[in-house]
Amino acid sequence: MTITVLGLGPMGQALARALLDTGHRVTVWNRTEARADALADRTVVGLSSDTPDRARRTAALVHTHGGRYLDGAIMTPTDTIGTPGAAILLAGPKQLADAHRTALESLGRITWVGDEHGRAAAFDMALLDLFWTSVAGFEHALMVARANGITPAELLPHARGIVDILAPVFTEIAARIGEDRHHDDVTASVSSVAASVRHLIAASREAGVDPAMLEVFGGHVDAAVAAGHGAEEISRIAAHMVVAEVAAE
Amino acid sequence: MTITVLGLGPMGQALARALLDTGHRVTVWNRTEARADALADRTVVGLSSDTPDRARRTAALVHTHGGRYLDGAIMTPTDTIGTPGAAILLAGPKQLADAHRTALESLGRITWVGDEHGRAAAFDMALLDLFWTSVAGFEHALMVARANGITPAELLPHARGIVDILAPVFTEIAARIGEDRHHDDVTASVSSVAASVRHLIAASREAGVDPAMLEVFGGHVDAAVAAGHGAEEISRIAAHMVVAEVAAE
Repeated sequence: MTITVLGLGPMGQALARALLDTGHRVTVWNRTEARADALADRTVVGLSSDTPDRARRTAALVHTHGGRYLDGAIMTPTDTIGTPGAAILLAGPKQLADAHRTALESLGRITWVGDEHGRAAAFDMALLDLFWTSVAGFEHALMVARANGITPAELLPHARGIVDILAPVFTEIAARIGEDRHHDDVTASVSSVAASVRHLIAASREAGVDPAMLEVFGGHVDAAVAAGHGAEEISRIAAHMVVAEVAAE
Repeated sequence: MTITVLGLGPMGQALARALLDTGHRVTVWNRTEARADALADRTVVGLSSDTPDRARRTAALVHTHGGRYLDGAIMTPTDTIGTPGAAILLAGPKQLADAHRTALESLGRITWVGDEHGRAAAFDMALLDLFWTSVAGFEHALMVARANGITPAELLPHARGIVDILAPVFTEIAARIGEDRHHDDVTASVSSVAASVRHLIAASREAGVDPAMLEVFGGHVDAAVAAGHGAEEISRIAAHMVVAEVAAE
């Protein structure tokens, strides 16, 4: 079996090298050279980081041209490729994933997440969403602290203390949202978050730091309060991030 | 020494109880009963969660009326008060903090963070900023995932994997911002974040989830790229959260 790698950016190069290192025959194409008729009867594995809908459209396109499609999401940096540290989520027909598992495992640890082609990208987007939002929150916190004479080195150990409590908090929130259960044993109410976020916005303004991310979140919290959920647990806020009308891209 | 507790919400009650349990004489006031002339020659310890400027204004007010002021930030929930699990940051004159350390330690673990009265509140605000932004990111991620057929229980273990990498990422970012060093050994560039955030915004829209928090962060990232910092490390983004003109509250 010859494996063709399309796209020769840093990640494409790392993938091609890992396949070569495990004894595969590899050819490489730049994206512009790919011809649709070459897809016939091939298995195409998409490994770019894009949206679930894009993965679904790519699957449809490949099927139209007589090919088979698996969509993967590489969850770790380029330098992990070909090592046990690389984590790749894979979506598409289970039988197809199994048929190519050996080749794919030369790239990294493979986790199949379902038949539906959008699922790997959906995991990828959700996890990057969490990651970048948290990083944004930390950088924002550093700027608020610095305006008050607190250095990044001073804030860091306390920030790591916050990170330590995220895992149990996330576990609780996930359980409550999964069960749509926000009333019982409330320890942090939506109303208390609303008050806290108002203070955070004021502190951000005082510090000369853009409070807009907090204002957006505050809007979701206030919407939950306005809908009568002020006394419920903070897990209730999530539903108020869902918009009735999806804005056109 | 008699300690007067002002404010009898759940936290005020917990504080009064912890003081009584450690043998202190305690009187309690509702806030409305407090008279300014009663402050003379007293040490006032503010323990509400508010902004650094508010702490500084309270200190000035207490000083005007002949009192001394310490500002504290309670970092843990009400049910920790009076146990070793309670963490309280304290700002104000070191000598004054030391003089009242024994009484304050009946409430919880005391960490003095500096003479300047705004510092405890600044730590509090920065850490709550990080906490709530991260929680918002997780709830947002859960909604994006759910729109793609992924349950909270399915996303949770992966989200905990993201939490595991936050501590080292934050350590790196804090070091770089502390040293204003964003050029060397770039592993995640500002430009790569810009591309990632565009995908996240598209995925959020496709999922019918408000992308506004990501759009605000994307604006900061784009500003860093526009200022010529695209090839630098993600630590560079923080400076672009600082606004030139502080909006009026």
